[in-house]
Amino acid sequence: MKSKHLINPMDLSIGELDEIFTLAHQIIANPNEFSNCCNGKILATLFYEPSTRTRFSFEAAMMRLGGKILGFSEPNSSSAVKGETLADTIKMVSIYSDIIAMRHPKEGSAKVASMYSQVPVINAGDGGHHHPTQTLTDLLTIKSLKGTLHNHVIGICGDLKYGRTVQSLITAMSRYENIKFVLISPKELRIPQYIRQEVLDKNNIEYCEEEKIEEVIESLDILYMTRIQKERFFNENEYLRLKDSYILDAHKMEIAKKDMIVMHPLPRVNEIDIEVDKDVRAAYFKQAEFGMYVRMALIVKLLRGVEYINEAKDEQIIKKIKSPLPQKISRILKCNNPRCITSDEKYLEDVFELVDEDKGSYKCQYCDTIINPREV
Amino acid sequence: MKSKHLINPMDLSIGELDEIFTLAHQIIANPNEFSNCCNGKILATLFYEPSTRTRFSFEAAMMRLGGKILGFSEPNSSSAVKGETLADTIKMVSIYSDIIAMRHPKEGSAKVASMYSQVPVINAGDGGHHHPTQTLTDLLTIKSLKGTLHNHVIGICGDLKYGRTVQSLITAMSRYENIKFVLISPKELRIPQYIRQEVLDKNNIEYCEEEKIEEVIESLDILYMTRIQKERFFNENEYLRLKDSYILDAHKMEIAKKDMIVMHPLPRVNEIDIEVDKDVRAAYFKQAEFGMYVRMALIVKLLRGVEYINEAKDEQIIKKIKSPLPQKISRILKCNNPRCITSDEKYLEDVFELVDEDKGSYKCQYCDTIINPREV
Amino acid sequence: MKSKHLINPMDLSIGELDEIFTLAHQIIANPNEFSNCCNGKILATLFYEPSTRTRFSFEAAMMRLGGKILGFSEPNSSSAVKGETLADTIKMVSIYSDIIAMRHPKEGSAKVASMYSQVPVINAGDGGHHHPTQTLTDLLTIKSLKGTLHNHVIGICGDLKYGRTVQSLITAMSRYENIKFVLISPKELRIPQYIRQEVLDKNNIEYCEEEKIEEVIESLDILYMTRIQKERFFNENEYLRLKDSYILDAHKMEIAKKDMIVMHPLPRVNEIDIEVDKDVRAAYFKQAEFGMYVRMALIVKLLRGVEYINEAKDEQIIKKIKSPLPQKISRILKCNNPRCITSDEKYLEDVFELVDEDKGSYKCQYCDTIINPREV
Repeated sequence: MKSKHLINPMDLSIGELDEIFTLAHQIIANPNEFSNCCNGKILATLFYEPSTRTRFSFEAAMMRLGGKILGFSEPNSSSAVKGETLADTIKMVSIYSDIIAMRHPKEGSAKVASMYSQVPVINAGDGGHHHPTQTLTDLLTIKSLKGTLHNHVIGICGDLKYGRTVQSLITAMSRYENIKFVLISPKELRIPQYIRQEVLDKNNIEYCEEEKIEEVIESLDILYMTRIQKERFFNENEYLRLKDSYILDAHKMEIAKKDMIVMHPLPRVNEIDIEVDKDVRAAYFKQAEFGMYVRMALIVKLLRGVEYINEAKDEQIIKKIKSPLPQKISRILKCNNPRCITSDEKYLEDVFELVDEDKGSYKCQYCDTIINPREV
Repeated sequence: MKSKHLINPMDLSIGELDEIFTLAHQIIANPNEFSNCCNGKILATLFYEPSTRTRFSFEAAMMRLGGKILGFSEPNSSSAVKGETLADTIKMVSIYSDIIAMRHPKEGSAKVASMYSQVPVINAGDGGHHHPTQTLTDLLTIKSLKGTLHNHVIGICGDLKYGRTVQSLITAMSRYENIKFVLISPKELRIPQYIRQEVLDKNNIEYCEEEKIEEVIESLDILYMTRIQKERFFNENEYLRLKDSYILDAHKMEIAKKDMIVMHPLPRVNEIDIEVDKDVRAAYFKQAEFGMYVRMALIVKLLRGVEYINEAKDEQIIKKIKSPLPQKISRILKCNNPRCITSDEKYLEDVFELVDEDKGSYKCQYCDTIINPREV
Repeated sequence: MKSKHLINPMDLSIGELDEIFTLAHQIIANPNEFSNCCNGKILATLFYEPSTRTRFSFEAAMMRLGGKILGFSEPNSSSAVKGETLADTIKMVSIYSDIIAMRHPKEGSAKVASMYSQVPVINAGDGGHHHPTQTLTDLLTIKSLKGTLHNHVIGICGDLKYGRTVQSLITAMSRYENIKFVLISPKELRIPQYIRQEVLDKNNIEYCEEEKIEEVIESLDILYMTRIQKERFFNENEYLRLKDSYILDAHKMEIAKKDMIVMHPLPRVNEIDIEVDKDVRAAYFKQAEFGMYVRMALIVKLLRGVEYINEAKDEQIIKKIKSPLPQKISRILKCNNPRCITSDEKYLEDVFELVDEDKGSYKCQYCDTIINPREV
């Protein structure tokens, strides 16, 4: 694996993902062989906002490899380090630890951490931006339970407009062959336009958009459930009309294929009835277990890792330098995303990378917001 | 040991307790032999309310066995998992850990955890309900310092009406031979009627009730001190008349037997004067140490354990099925204890077990509240 | 090392410090040789106020030695133990652990902990009183980067009146040969009179007092930067006149010696411009790393330790007993420092040690406040 850090799920090529999944399967098959492979190593878990589930998954992964944990788990503890910049905190933490898993409310914060860290950084969620180990978990679950990542009809149900997890999953699965998506959501919560254009259409992925689980469930190989918050609906009538369509129960499961699997990133509220838990097709707790194994594989890979993919990228940029527009511009533009880490941490240079020469659009290197300076 | 979990101190037979105490004594004698016996194992400490003392005791126990710790220690951290049911949290945690110690403010919560966990669950306190490892600690202390659990005059001083610890101790000690209790409390805080009837009278245990330590201390082999909160007294005069009678000091110790031991579950406020600490008969810090060793023994036993005692119990119930009243009733009754876990977690079936065929009384299987449906 | 505990940086003789630094250098050179030397040992980190940086440094140190961690990291968690005296908490914790690092807001609290602990106690900060491992960190950094602790011109910049760190450093460095201090601060924040008299003058240390970094930086071997809070200035004009003089930037670094080192206890706010980070002379992150190594050495030394230095001191006091004034007086005087631990923990005897027979002045043994009973 060429990457030193994992910030964005798309940082990893299909080949690199395969390496991680192969290693995860080796660990599942022979856990004892790996139970001392991180002896003497320390994982720092920096949770600037609480996420017990994600933290436990990382910490259990490191402990199962023989390593130890240093960290804080919620805002009270971390307030002690708030007086200083994230850059300084990360410099300090990377002195005391061998690898860092960080969750932070600001978008782009994981990118910043990776810039100042001496040790590998894993993004455990940076605001609504990325959560790459969830995507890795989802892919490993599909590969393990369905045998392959190719040739699936994948139903994705819930809030597709704001749901980071499902957007990442769609993006990641679009790289595999013969994937068809059935996107199930109320009209107001359909997949955003840029996913439609930049991911689905660009990759010639077949997809359809539906409103009700029961009308499409029989065609699915995989049903990925997520929560819809009542507040997201535009009106009460619409909510009442549709709400039962987004609850998976034993009745709906009767129509589904015998080998369909049901996934969910958890925690669930009521979108999967607990009677479905007994169904052999319910894969969401198994999925949580795969989450631990994929994190074990990732930690092992990163601790063995050599090169920093971003440095490699920087070299590529130098080779392409004949472009009429600069590939990278610093200090000229300001990111206009109020949730971007640059809005808090003033020492950061605003750096933008060219994404479209024709349009002249640039992308903030921290939070990936697209800005067109010609239009600002 | 037949039990997979430890929820109620009475889950364990006298023989099973003996096994645990024997193992604890082996650990005390040869700690190094056990210092790696939980290598690679993870204890999850889920403290939904803080209890530093109990948590430290469990965590130190696991560390002294070579194991590791995953967990949260107070409400802020655990709020992250509050969005989901206890059942889902426990399913998740039992994926990441090998054994769970849980403290939770709701009665019956430990029972619920045991129902959904793949791994052994130890109740580290479920509201005012049970705290079985405290009882184990008390018993090991008596056995270790007095040589036997039989033939003692045990003074128990404090709030006997609301004190969970002392009620559990009375219940547990009532199973041993030739035990006499001297119950020392203000009239308003005497032992509840059901302990008197169901434990003391039923087992023909000799006991007397007194108001002042100084009048009975010379007869005691063991003095178990607990705190009395001023608010528990009905009137100020009564409080002023008695308050010094519930403070153990060097003066009162002068009258006591030379080999009496003083116990206290800790923390104390002022009910034991610090000058008593120097007295060789003060056993309360030693007791805290036994608490760690008994938890070490318990963890080892449970991790080695095979069967689930409750399943065994269920089988017994099936054999007794000729009873005119059903042994178990589900969904018909509702527990009327507002502190019962069923009042929060709505997915739980209300399940009651028959406790008295003649009276027709049933017991909530979560919080043990007795209900007589004929009288409701 | 004769000391069982580390409460005050001056508890250690120059010889004992040398032993610690030598061990730290051995650890830096061969970390693998020490990676199991605390196997099976537990460090309790009791942080009654949060200090993520200090806690991480201690915990990483213990983990790098193969040991484990038990503890709490902030007030919420510790509130559970607040119902009891510090003495009882420490007795309990010293049952469960092998060594304790404690941070507590009250002055003298570390001393109290050492009195009731069965295991070594390291003061990780007791209010504004002592923070000895910071001083050890500073000394190891100087010794490692400059080769020796003797023969330096040391600039110390910032709030010298209230800054505990710099006062401890001045006191500690005054024991070495040929040290000259350049004390850089606004007039209102100059070094207190007792440091001037009792440390600098008494040891014939050369020093000068200046207002601006830029006027003296070229003479320095070491520049120790700390923060000045705006609120400390007496008037706004003075603040505006001086503020830039207390910010170290690349421009000021140009005048400095090529081998000067810049130190800072961290966290910094803006008193060192981030462009200085790239300068090879910037030693403050290296210093954080030395902090971990010196704590590793200290933990190893204390766990190997035998005698209790305070007992040795008590013997010396007995030998000197012919003094006309008592060396120690108990219960007679009351410490008048409102931040002293004796103001909270009422069971503590007020104990004072004679510091000056002629003046008749005594020192509180907890917080070191000097009282002259003849003048009270």
